[in-house]
Order: sequence, then C-alpha cells, then structure tokens
Amino acid sequence: MIVVIKPGTLTLEIERTCQELRSWNVIPEPIVGKHQVAIGLIGDTAALNPQQIQQLSPFIEKVIRVNKPYKRASLEFRHGEPSSVIVSTPNGLVTFGQNYPIVSIAGPCSVENEEMIVETAQLVKAAGAKFLRGGAYKPRTSPYAFQGHGAPALDLLATARQATGLGIVTEVMDTADLEKVAEVADIIQIGARNMQNFSLLKRVGAINKPVVLKRGLSATIEEWLMAAEYILAAGNPNVILCERGIRTFDRQYTRNTLDLTAVPVLRSLTHLPIMVDPSHGTGLAEYVPTMAKAAIVAGADSLMIEVHPNPKKALSDGSQSLSLQQYEEFMKQIAIIGQAVCRWPQEYPLSTVPLGSHRQLSTSSSANP
Amino acid sequence: MIVVIKPGTLTLEIERTCQELRSWNVIPEPIVGKHQVAIGLIGDTAALNPQQIQQLSPFIEKVIRVNKPYKRASLEFRHGEPSSVIVSTPNGLVTFGQNYPIVSIAGPCSVENEEMIVETAQLVKAAGAKFLRGGAYKPRTSPYAFQGHGAPALDLLATARQATGLGIVTEVMDTADLEKVAEVADIIQIGARNMQNFSLLKRVGAINKPVVLKRGLSATIEEWLMAAEYILAAGNPNVILCERGIRTFDRQYTRNTLDLTAVPVLRSLTHLPIMVDPSHGTGLAEYVPTMAKAAIVAGADSLMIEVHPNPKKALSDGSQSLSLQQYEEFMKQIAIIGQAVCRWPQEYPLSTVPLGSHRQLSTSSSANP
Amino acid sequence: MIVVIKPGTLTLEIERTCQELRSWNVIPEPIVGKHQVAIGLIGDTAALNPQQIQQLSPFIEKVIRVNKPYKRASLEFRHGEPSSVIVSTPNGLVTFGQNYPIVSIAGPCSVENEEMIVETAQLVKAAGAKFLRGGAYKPRTSPYAFQGHGAPALDLLATARQATGLGIVTEVMDTADLEKVAEVADIIQIGARNMQNFSLLKRVGAINKPVVLKRGLSATIEEWLMAAEYILAAGNPNVILCERGIRTFDRQYTRNTLDLTAVPVLRSLTHLPIMVDPSHGTGLAEYVPTMAKAAIVAGADSLMIEVHPNPKKALSDGSQSLSLQQYEEFMKQIAIIGQAVCRWPQEYPLSTVPLGSHRQLSTSSSANP
Amino acid sequence: MIVVIKPGTLTLEIERTCQELRSWNVIPEPIVGKHQVAIGLIGDTAALNPQQIQQLSPFIEKVIRVNKPYKRASLEFRHGEPSSVIVSTPNGLVTFGQNYPIVSIAGPCSVENEEMIVETAQLVKAAGAKFLRGGAYKPRTSPYAFQGHGAPALDLLATARQATGLGIVTEVMDTADLEKVAEVADIIQIGARNMQNFSLLKRVGAINKPVVLKRGLSATIEEWLMAAEYILAAGNPNVILCERGIRTFDRQYTRNTLDLTAVPVLRSLTHLPIMVDPSHGTGLAEYVPTMAKAAIVAGADSLMIEVHPNPKKALSDGSQSLSLQQYEEFMKQIAIIGQAVCRWPQEYPLSTVPLGSHRQLSTSSSANP
Repeated sequence: MIVVIKPGTLTLEIERTCQELRSWNVIPEPIVGKHQVAIGLIGDTAALNPQQIQQLSPFIEKVIRVNKPYKRASLEFRHGEPSSVIVSTPNGLVTFGQNYPIVSIAGPCSVENEEMIVETAQLVKAAGAKFLRGGAYKPRTSPYAFQGHGAPALDLLATARQATGLGIVTEVMDTADLEKVAEVADIIQIGARNMQNFSLLKRVGAINKPVVLKRGLSATIEEWLMAAEYILAAGNPNVILCERGIRTFDRQYTRNTLDLTAVPVLRSLTHLPIMVDPSHGTGLAEYVPTMAKAAIVAGADSLMIEVHPNPKKALSDGSQSLSLQQYEEFMKQIAIIGQAVCRWPQEYPLSTVPLGSHRQLSTSSSANP
Repeated sequence: MIVVIKPGTLTLEIERTCQELRSWNVIPEPIVGKHQVAIGLIGDTAALNPQQIQQLSPFIEKVIRVNKPYKRASLEFRHGEPSSVIVSTPNGLVTFGQNYPIVSIAGPCSVENEEMIVETAQLVKAAGAKFLRGGAYKPRTSPYAFQGHGAPALDLLATARQATGLGIVTEVMDTADLEKVAEVADIIQIGARNMQNFSLLKRVGAINKPVVLKRGLSATIEEWLMAAEYILAAGNPNVILCERGIRTFDRQYTRNTLDLTAVPVLRSLTHLPIMVDPSHGTGLAEYVPTMAKAAIVAGADSLMIEVHPNPKKALSDGSQSLSLQQYEEFMKQIAIIGQAVCRWPQEYPLSTVPLGSHRQLSTSSSANP
Repeated sequence: MIVVIKPGTLTLEIERTCQELRSWNVIPEPIVGKHQVAIGLIGDTAALNPQQIQQLSPFIEKVIRVNKPYKRASLEFRHGEPSSVIVSTPNGLVTFGQNYPIVSIAGPCSVENEEMIVETAQLVKAAGAKFLRGGAYKPRTSPYAFQGHGAPALDLLATARQATGLGIVTEVMDTADLEKVAEVADIIQIGARNMQNFSLLKRVGAINKPVVLKRGLSATIEEWLMAAEYILAAGNPNVILCERGIRTFDRQYTRNTLDLTAVPVLRSLTHLPIMVDPSHGTGLAEYVPTMAKAAIVAGADSLMIEVHPNPKKALSDGSQSLSLQQYEEFMKQIAIIGQAVCRWPQEYPLSTVPLGSHRQLSTSSSANP
Repeated sequence: MIVVIKPGTLTLEIERTCQELRSWNVIPEPIVGKHQVAIGLIGDTAALNPQQIQQLSPFIEKVIRVNKPYKRASLEFRHGEPSSVIVSTPNGLVTFGQNYPIVSIAGPCSVENEEMIVETAQLVKAAGAKFLRGGAYKPRTSPYAFQGHGAPALDLLATARQATGLGIVTEVMDTADLEKVAEVADIIQIGARNMQNFSLLKRVGAINKPVVLKRGLSATIEEWLMAAEYILAAGNPNVILCERGIRTFDRQYTRNTLDLTAVPVLRSLTHLPIMVDPSHGTGLAEYVPTMAKAAIVAGADSLMIEVHPNPKKALSDGSQSLSLQQYEEFMKQIAIIGQAVCRWPQEYPLSTVPLGSHRQLSTSSSANP
C-alpha cells in the first residue's frame, strides 16, 4: 500500500503520519520525490482499509492499494495454472476449463410446462448441449410480469434431467429456496442482479455445488472477482464466471453491451473458467450466433444460449431466444469456429459445409491488379 | 402500445400482423404514414410484453410502450397528490413527505459497540436528527472486510433507541433476517445492491414497516420505481425512495455521481417521499455538507448522513463519515438553507449567524461602474 | 511515479528494471513489501509517460502517477487562491470568481433574427443577466437540422450588444471562424463536443479573450482540467469551466445527468471559476429553476440559462428554454437562494416574498407530540 | 412521428393540439386508447423536431420519432445492399466491403522519423497489410505530451508510400490542415474526439477522399451514423465506420470497452463498410490478437492495428502497439480465422500450422466417460 502525501506538507506532519502508521502494524518507508513524498507500507497490508488510512491525516492525498484484493480467485493462487470445474451429470462428467472443449448450455428463460421443457431438453441435447438451463424463479423488473413457476418448475427440470441425462443449470434468488434448488440443479446460477447479494453468495459458498456467477449489470471486473471470492472463501471452489453484457450509455439497439474483452482480461487475472451468455449480452436473437462465435474466439470455455420451442409465445425473454431449429443450425455453425480454435468436442465432428461457403467473394476482390 | 412496421413491408403482411394482434385481445389501429406504417394498439396493453409483440413478425421494427409500467408508484395513482409516510418512534410520529419539514437521519455506517452507538445517538438527536441509522448487516465488496456484527448489533440499536427515543433505520440483506430486523427497526432499509433483489422486495412488501429503498448503482429511474412497485404491490404503501449516487465513467474524485436531478424528476413521476444520501453519493466527508444543502434545494424530503464518533477508526466507510462535531456544525449550516426553502422543523430555529457570513465579498465586486 | 512489480519477480529482473529506469533520468527507490515490490521514481517524472514505463518489463504490474498531470489549472499553481476572470462589457467590468457575486448569462440556443435577439437581450438584462448567450454556429447531431445562421448571426449579436450593453457569449466550432467570432464575443464558448478539439483549444489559448470551456459529454474531471490546461499553456489565463451534464446509462427522463458534485470537487482541485448550465444539464425547462438553485448552493460562480421569446417555435433546443416571462420569475426565485449564500449582486435586492412562502407546511408537521 | 398525450387530457385540448399540428403540414391521426390517446403524424415528418412538437402543449407526454434520422447512411438507402469503398493505392485498388476480403491497416500511433516509418511500412506490407497508418497530428489529452511532428511527418508518410506502394491512412484534426493531409492520405481519418466536430465532417464531406470515421468515446450508434450522414450529405459517399472502444464505468484493466456487437448491429442498419481497431479498443497489446480475431468473426471488413518497431520507446501509445515481430506472428494467426470465415485475401494462404495446435486438449476431456 502506498500513501501519497500532498505537496508542500511539513516534514513534521509526515513524521507524525509515519508514527501513526506504525500503530497499524506496518512499516512506513518514505520515498522523498522532487515535488511530493509517498510512503510505502510494508507488512500485512491486505487487512488495511485504504479509506481508513486516508483518514489519518488531512495531508494524505490518496492511498493506493498495490496488492489485488482477491486471493483465492487470483491466477497467482494457482501459480498461473487454470482451474477446471468438473460437474457430474447423468450423462457423465463434464469439465469446464481452459484446457477442455467448450461446454454448451441451452434452454428457455423460464420453465413453462413439462412438454416444452422436455422437448427443448431433447433437442438441445441432440444438437450438442451438455446442460439444460431453465428458470424456476425469475428476476423480473416488473412485479406484474411472470415470476416463474417456482418449486413446481424445479420438478419439471428434474423430469427433463431424467428424460435426457442433461445436467441442469437454474437460478436461485433467495437463500430460503437454496436447498430446494440444489436438489435439482447440477449447477446453481447466481443472476446478474444478485451478484452482490452477499448473503446468497455466502450460502452457495457453503454448499457443495458448482456455481455460475453472472456479472452484475455495472460490476467492474474486480468487483466480479470479489463476488467469486465470497464463494471461494466460504469453501466452494467450483465457480464459473459468466459474462452477460454490461450496462452502458447506448441501449437503443441492444439490451446490454457484451464485453468480450473481459474474457482475455479474466484469463490474465484468474484461474476460474469463463462462460459467455450472448443471449442476455445482446438481447436479440439475430445477434446471438455472431456474438457466440466471437465469444469462442475470445476464449470462452462455455456458452449459455436461450432456446425456446416458440419464442413468439415465450413467457419471458422471447426476443432473445433462438427457436429449436435455429439452435440446431447455430450449433453446426459454431462447431466450425470451435474446431478452428481446437476446442470443439470430438463427438461433434466438423460439419462438411464450411462456414461462409454460402458467401461468394467478389472475384475482382482486393488489390494487386 | 405502438407497433412500428419496417418501411416497404407489404400490406398483406401488415394485415396478417393486425390479425395476429387481435388474438392478443387488443384492437389494432394502423396509422399509414408517408414512409412507414405504425399500428396503435387499443385495449388492456399493460399486460402485454413489448418483446413478445416484437416476435410476431420479422417486419416489426420496434414496439413502443406508451403507458408507464408502474401504477401504484405513479403520481397519477394519487391523482397528483404527494403521499406521506408516517413513522412512529418513541419520541412521537415523524412524517416524511413533500408538505412536511425535512427529516434528518444520521449515524454510523456500522454499529461497532454500545458506547459508540449510544453516544452517537445522543449527539445526533441533540443536533436535530429524528432517526439513528446504523448497520448490523453490512454489504461489503470484500469477504475479508468487516461484515457487521449481525444480531448483537440489532440489540445495540434497540438500546440506543431506548436511550434516546430516536427511530431506527437499519438494513436487511437476507429474507432470513427480516423478522429480527423488523423487531428493532422503525424503518427498514433496502440497500443499493439489493434494489433488484425481488425476493427481498416481496417480503418487505408483505410486512407492516416503512421501507427506505435505495437506488441501485446503475438503476434507471424507471427500474427504481418498478422496484418500489414490488413493495407497494405486495401491500406495503410506506416506501421512501433514497438517491445515493449512481455509477458513471468518472470515479476518480468521488465514489459515485450524486444524481440530484432525480429529485425533481421523481417529483413529476411519483407521489412517494424522496430522501438523499450525500455520504454515499459523494463518498467523501468534505463534500457532504455542500451536497446536502444542494439536495434540500433540489427538493429532498429527508437527508441520510453518515456520522461516526471517530471516522479515522471506523470499521467501515470512515472516509465519508462526519465526526459528531462536524455533524453539529453541519446541522446549523443546513438549517439556514432548510429555512430558506421553508422546510425546516420549527423546533430548530435559524442560527443567528448567516450562512456565508464568513465569506467576504470583494467590494469592487461585479459590474456597473 | 510508482512502478509496481508483479509478485514473484526475480531480484535480478527488478535490478535490471531499476537500471533501465536510471536511463530515463530518474532515481529508482525500491520498496520491498511482504508480497510485492514497488519502485518509487524520484526526479522530473512529469515528463514521463506511464504507458512507456510499463513497457520496460513484462514484470511491471502497473505504473501509478502520483503527481497531478495539470499544473497551471491546479489550485497549487496559485497556492490555494482562487483566480477570477474579469470581462470587459459595454456596461462595465464583470468578474467571475469564488469571491464575487454569481454572474447570470442568458439567451437563446441560436440567434434567429434581429427582433428576437434584441428583445431577448433587453429582457434578460432587465431581469439581472450580465451576458447574452446566442449561437451563430450550432453543433447539431443531424446535418438536416438548423445549423445556425453563421456570420450574419454574429452581426445580430453585435447589434444586441450595442442595444443593451450586455457582454456576448457565443460558440466557436472551427478555427477558421475564430477571428470573426472573437470580434463580437466578449467570452468565447467551446462546446461540449469540442472539449477535446485540441487544435481549437490551442487557437483560443493564443488569443486574448476569456473562454468558457464546457465539459465534454463523457469527459472525466481530469480530462476537463487538461483541456483547460491546453488553453492556459498557450497563454490565455482567462478560462471558466462550465458543467453542463454528463452522459450516463439513464437518458429516459433527462437529456444528461447534471453532475453538481463537480462544483465542490473542482473547487478542491483548481483555482478557475466555475459555471453551471442547467438547461443542457437537464434538457427540460421544467427542471431548470430547481437545478439552478441547487447549483448556486453547490457553489457555482455563474449560471448559463437558455431563454427564448417563444420556446415552442425555437429553431433549436426549445424544450429546455425558459420563456422570457419564466426567466423573469426564475431570477426572482434564485435571488433568494443567491442571497442566502451571500452571493447575489447588491443591485438586485431580495424579493420581499420569501421562497416557498406559497407552500403551506402542514401544522401537524413532524414529531414531538 | 407519434405524439403521446398525457392520461386524463380533455378532448378539447387534444383537438387544439391536432389543429396546431396541422399548421406544421402534417396530418394528425388520433389513436384513442383505453387509458391514453396518441396522435400519429402523417406527412413529411423527417423535417420536424420532436423537441419542438413537445412544446406545443403541456399535455404532450412525449414525442416519438418512428423514422430513423439518417437516410444516406441507412441500409434502406441502398435497398439492403452493402456498399463498398474502393481506394486507389500505388499497389492497386483496395476494396473495403462486406463481400470483400478483410483489409489490414497497420502502423505506429505517430510518425517519429523516416527510418522507423519506412521500416514499419516495409514489414507490415510483407506481413499482409494494404495500408500504413501513422499520425502526423496527434490528439493528446495533455498539452505537454508529444503532439505529432505535423507537416514534416506528412512528408515522411509520402516517402513510406513511395517506398512500399502502401496506401496511407492518417488523421486530420483541423480544417486548416485538411488540404495538406489530403495530398498525402489515401484515406483520411477522423478521430474519436472529432466524431462530432461537425465543421470538420462537412469539410471532409466536400472533398473526394475516402474517410475512416472513428466512433466517439461515448457516441451512440445512432449519433455515429448521423456523423457519417454529415459526410455523405456533403457529397462524399466513401465512408468507413471504425469501432475503437467506448467509455464505460470499468476502466481498470482496459483503456476502453470494445463494442464488438456494434459490428452486426451496424450491418443491420447501414450499408457502410465496418472497421475495428482493437489497439485503441483494448489499450493493451496483449489483448489485441485475441480481440482482432473476435472482430473478424463478428464481421469486420477491416482491421486497424498499431505496430511500432520498438513499442517501449514509442513517443505515444506504446503500451497498445505490437512490435514488428509480433505483427508478423499476429497476421499468421488471424489468417486462420480469416480463412475460416472465407474472408482472407487469396495471396496470403493459410498457414500450415493450425491455430491452437500448440494447445493440448486434455484427453480425458469432457463428458461421456
């Protein structure tokens, strides 16, 4: 930690500040610059709060934390090695991680009835998905919007799981529902609006289930990693980070701004596996395939895609859902990109039709006449 | 609701869309423009989801909701009359509302021990506060930061309440803690990070306690009102909205960007009382008095101020807390502005020293030589 | 400047980096912490580019600038004393500054014809304005929108100046027009969209006219001060900073988010006078009076208000303009707040009707039964 | 255009408003809903200003523009066909467009001296670039930072052009320099900070040179297209849009947030070719290759990459520049992705080493044990 002193501060005051800093069990090392003095703090500064240090003297200009505030989530914690999250599903173990094939998750925003969820599960499985997503409890902006079918929807997810062997990903919104959700879910989802619901983070940290932690609407990457740290610190090492779009000034043509650079940035900061959700990230089905492909190239370890048998009649988020037919086509298309980066499951071989073969490049193409 | 059709769409397709719209129990009224067609929908459109309507045809450019999505929170719901929230405290009833004096709330970020909380309560009461704030459960970015003393801190708040007669404002973060919190609190606070914790909103909506609903870090005014609508729709009419700063691109010199224009904007949209928290809004004690005064002039019905007996040693948020002495001085200063807008409690008469009297205007001042 | 080294870096590499740093004419002072090493740089670091230092070694985690990048704009440059900008107008000298009465500027978005601009000038003068604002060259989002009357509008401003003795504030958008604009303007305005038009900043820095520098739509306070630094460094010391709202995620109910906390923040960083433009800041006439009053309390030295004889028929920005009658009433209202903070010109004595006297506080008001 | 009337407005007032609307040469068509009335306007509404219509009556809730405000930039303007921009360079014609191979542009942030610029040009040409970028006039946040060598740097660009046959892309910041810049440049660049420098847009619209228009730091997609519309409306049809990152709340780990979804969104709105600049978009060389690949997959027609012979010693933007060796390697890597989407120039055949072949997938990989 570094304490920057305002220009023109008297030596006496600097000494007094150093004296006070020593009472916090750190060793102050002043660096006397041409215009300003800064004091390096040596010792266990992780426990110190920069804001409190700031209060020690009105002559402190700012306090800069040098260490990263997250530990267990940091890449250093695993000495630079990526971690993997292994999830047991009826169909076998599925591994999320940088050295594994991309894991596909698909399903509707919310579970509507048995027929739709089982039909969806069967089709997304056939297309290559390893997990079925589906909401039983839905966070909705309006109290008058469909709130999810709750516990009965969990039963329907269990039925779909049994029918297909797919793993289940579903969201928990309330600590009171956690036990019920954990009975059915193979992966528990913490939604964007609950990324800093610290009570919920501690609780999912205390159980033995993998967790997908979605990025909050305006969460910085550091805050997101700190939210993961809550789960890790509570004892649950199986956290997958999911980028799902952030809120920016421009919301006219997309629902959110998908921050794909977050993928390589996270890679340089954390060992945790990374998922991308282009359905929420863009909010419009027409942009989902393109941005899913871009996410693969950016390095995503997993994709979460909203799929609905009849998007027009979906009880929520229809506009960003692919139909089942579109999802089938989508999986064929992204397989080509997945193979180009050597991260596609071997059991889904490359489609014989090359991506973009429908596109006829003008023969007069570019330069060099 | 208005459905805008893409330019160049065939009449047949427009008719088909109108046909389909009728199946949603609304009457479509096409407006045939020079370049484009729009279809007005007449009927009970409040129940319709614009995103789903969008799905009806690929020739729909956009769907525009004309009605506001909130009802009980809207000014129209009370035919333009502001509502007031009356809170019973040991010292008597306190009313929050546009036609009442400004209500002062003050106290530390977190309850640390009995001595500090009782001492703080006594002093802020003497200075004019009607409520003591203090956190038992604290939402902290880091799992390693002080998380609040929890239930024992609630007991200390009860002690301070008994000692001073002040009402208590404290935050609930988890539905599991609500009952305990509601026993002590006269007003329950929903923090910014939980503004869209819909489970929690429904629960506080189901009990009979006034609620302060803080604005989320990146919540639009509409989302904030929809969060209030959750509480109102669940049966609790006593909601106070609290502006506490939003997240923007510039976070170098302040913690958040205090959005004071939200006060008159809310006034034009909702009947609910409005509070401003300049401590979180700016994040730095030195800007709190100035922005508190500006908040009063902007029309705030209540102010929430962080106060700590020893900000340097505060377990959380010390840098934005006023000391007890500073709070005393602060209340004298803002009384002048409160009186200038005729909204200061009569029992706290105007200080005899005019605000700014310490400032000596240059005699050569402005123009007109 | 402080160079933070990644944890686990070998001493040899740190030494190599220090060696290289010496070749940049600075003295490196390593601070060896428990987990990490940081290197303080002593010497003339102002000339160094943190990004370049970062390149010296892949083991550098980050480079932190301790000094502020602006000099002439900083409060330290004047040893903590505020500066004032004195403008000569036909009616006499007008001074902008922290120790002077608030200066009122008013007028239409764009100059439309002689009658409207002269009529406006006469009325705003009568109401207390010292300057007439009016656009000859207008930055408009659409090429099809009215672009201002250009040079002929400058002549009309000269006419209004002669008729009333008011100073003229008008915007320059192009270095090619600067000479013409400077002939008529008493203060040259740089608009928000040109805040980082560095060519233009250098040119207005090279002439001898006061400049109002509006904050860019998404300019940080530091970038804004650096833009002022361009003008100051080019030799023109007469810069007034104008807050006019920033761009945030919520643009539904206001055009911009007025950042009033910028006023006390600037006060702590710079000696330059500060203006607030609540017309652009909110974008809606109905919020202008309230936010103007809040701006005064926040510490603004000057207010710029859009006024139009017939806002309905304004060629631009009608929705945020006050009518002439509204401006008269507005000035009476804000005089009360201006006097409450002892910053209202003596020649405009307090209206006898106290602000808010129309508001009848409920007698049963607050507590203490 | 649709005028939404506030609930509860009297029929008489609605009729009065319709009457007034007729005087604006449009035909009002009221849609009487259950709770509210909306008035559709038929006629030439493109010329109307929604803000002014809003002023017609205090009973107007809002005015919604149905048509897009841009015309020449819209996809409809070319009946859904993409346009292409053909640029003549000494080496021949190069075409930017959706149906053409991806065009690579590379070079240093600023032109430093003849040796560095010619060496860079030769190498980037060998690696596959068709254009050399290099700044003669540099927009810098600080007046004390290197501002570019100006006119002499233009001469050096001419030398590099002659030596290699590459086209030149360089930025103009001031209308006064346009002529000089246009003599050397094959494509003129308008930088992010000048995206709404409307004087400059009009001037480059009036000359006969292709223009790269970078997106402003906080420009919405609509504002960006309107800026392009300025150039198109002034007579220059050769505009290429360049996404270079936007400003968001999180600036800790990247300089900007690269908005790759803008690529497919633009594709659905405009016929203009699209470029991506991942160097500015991320601000850090280590993320450039990954995000360049993602940009290709997102559909970019061109890539602009910062390259410098010695990034450590670059006079500007060193931290986001690739070295010449890194650029060579970069081009080999992105060729694989470019070929996967069938958009790579035929003269640069696929590298024989498949992308990601260095990555060894764990054989125990995913599921199905």
